[in-house]
Amino acid sequence: MTTMNRQILLASRPTAEPTADNFRLVETPVPELADGQVLVRHHFLSLDPYMRGRMSESKSYAQPQPLNEVMIGGTVGEVVASKNGHFKVGDQVVGMGGWQEYAVVNADQRGVLQKVDTTHIPLSAYLGAVGMPGVTAWYGLVKIINPKAGETIVVSAASGAVGGAVGQLAKARGCRVVGIAGGPQKCAQVVEELGFDACIDYKAHGDAKALSKALKEACPNGIDGYFENVGGMILDAVMSRANAFSRIAMCGMIAGYNGEPIPMAAPQLILVNRMKIEGFIVSEHMDVWPDALKELGMLVASGKFKYRETVAEGLAAAPEAFLGLLKGRNFGKQLVKLV
Amino acid sequence: MTTMNRQILLASRPTAEPTADNFRLVETPVPELADGQVLVRHHFLSLDPYMRGRMSESKSYAQPQPLNEVMIGGTVGEVVASKNGHFKVGDQVVGMGGWQEYAVVNADQRGVLQKVDTTHIPLSAYLGAVGMPGVTAWYGLVKIINPKAGETIVVSAASGAVGGAVGQLAKARGCRVVGIAGGPQKCAQVVEELGFDACIDYKAHGDAKALSKALKEACPNGIDGYFENVGGMILDAVMSRANAFSRIAMCGMIAGYNGEPIPMAAPQLILVNRMKIEGFIVSEHMDVWPDALKELGMLVASGKFKYRETVAEGLAAAPEAFLGLLKGRNFGKQLVKLV
Repeated sequence: MTTMNRQILLASRPTAEPTADNFRLVETPVPELADGQVLVRHHFLSLDPYMRGRMSESKSYAQPQPLNEVMIGGTVGEVVASKNGHFKVGDQVVGMGGWQEYAVVNADQRGVLQKVDTTHIPLSAYLGAVGMPGVTAWYGLVKIINPKAGETIVVSAASGAVGGAVGQLAKARGCRVVGIAGGPQKCAQVVEELGFDACIDYKAHGDAKALSKALKEACPNGIDGYFENVGGMILDAVMSRANAFSRIAMCGMIAGYNGEPIPMAAPQLILVNRMKIEGFIVSEHMDVWPDALKELGMLVASGKFKYRETVAEGLAAAPEAFLGLLKGRNFGKQLVKLV
Repeated sequence: MTTMNRQILLASRPTAEPTADNFRLVETPVPELADGQVLVRHHFLSLDPYMRGRMSESKSYAQPQPLNEVMIGGTVGEVVASKNGHFKVGDQVVGMGGWQEYAVVNADQRGVLQKVDTTHIPLSAYLGAVGMPGVTAWYGLVKIINPKAGETIVVSAASGAVGGAVGQLAKARGCRVVGIAGGPQKCAQVVEELGFDACIDYKAHGDAKALSKALKEACPNGIDGYFENVGGMILDAVMSRANAFSRIAMCGMIAGYNGEPIPMAAPQLILVNRMKIEGFIVSEHMDVWPDALKELGMLVASGKFKYRETVAEGLAAAPEAFLGLLKGRNFGKQLVKLV
């Protein structure tokens, strides 16, 4: 009996804001496994802002997602068939299986499929707090911002998977942590659930000047480190409160993902305040993953680390869930549950 | 007999572009020396872009220059009287004597006055290639850009004291070096005298797009390091040609010194290209001065290092010479000769 696999392909490239029409759901039979291959049934797909960049053809740090192929993305699931000595049926695994119900993985290639232990850590967390978003937070905070106890750290998209991790890792290092998020509900959650010292609703502030004033109140000693996920007026407002020798880890600029101009108003502040700004992509720093995952895994397993998940049900819901993520409709990690 | 000292004070702060009216020349008697003091007769004053920042009251990395006090600035000269055991009449010295013919220096304070050797290095060079501008070039290039042989390094204000040093230090490290300067004469000098591989006249290019095209031709392998003295459209153009993992040392942004807005058009390139941008002030890195001065001194003494000086004659000429420097009228180091 042939197992059928449902997949979502990139059907067309968005010209500005992406729409559901850019995706196409298809059904194809799962092929026979060759030697060395493993068949994984996906339990969860990860949806992440970086995927927006891959949908476009413009020059970026990664190759564009090819048209008419399965959308890329992180996945967790269970091995349901194996012709590979390292994996057996029932193994729980994390990989880059893409937007589909099953993936045939050439598991001989080192690193493409990792067995994970779900005794103390839920499977879905390997796509969030103990996965790529967690390590992203860890790298930018620890390796670029390098915070000292007592410093003030600000993070935008604070209620997202990355932002929430940044704040909690910074709190664990003795920092004052201030989030920026969209809407009073998200801000309340960031403070009450995630333990940030304060969170500013950028939607309640019409321009960089108003946001700067709110930041001044929340950061009476100025800002020493900033983890950037958004760009635009939020970056301008943060820079206006930056201290001497402050550091900005540039992780994402979702404000410009559809091609909107997002100039930095006052780059002279980099000089005046002797700031350091560094862009990074976590997949280029594989050497830090073990250290980062160790800290993140211990925090999650011990229950000290809080995170939320927004879960869409079924593969067909992935495109709308992804479009919602780009509009900030999710709380915490955006997942699609398939099993 | 009392010696008279002529001094230039900051009389008022500029509201936009500074003018000669912001300065006032006064004549005052040189006071008697107290124990530990040294009287220095200045041979040369240094004029530098950073002084523009000090004229304003706005927040910057340094205190504003007080009104009705002698304009600050680097000086070289000769000891003409001494009540300090470490200095004797005839010693040649470099210090921060300011815009005046004589300075009374409390020479017990470490570092305020340095004896220099003029056997192989002209006295004036201690204000340029073997002084603050040279060390500024060295710090930004070596400590921030950290160039590797074969990389392409770009520097703006390439014919200035700092820019010329950046290019020659980068050439000595095996880099391709491209300057940006204003006007065909400066560009010719940068290539023919200073040995840059190419120099682009930004005045011949109306906007960042045109300048970007010129940079593409001059930098066929893209740009790995940029030493920023100007800002504005030059920064935008350079960023449009920046390679992955490129570094920008932010030393000055003269385009915005009079308060003009100088937004950075596309900060998302910092992320896309995983760039590092760092602002610095050389006086905060005194630990590198010995290493830097050693390399610069050897290069100058051996004749390998080329530099030009633009020399105004007499203290009264200092304000106009300074205003000319801000407009880019100088070639190389701008000095005022007093003796």
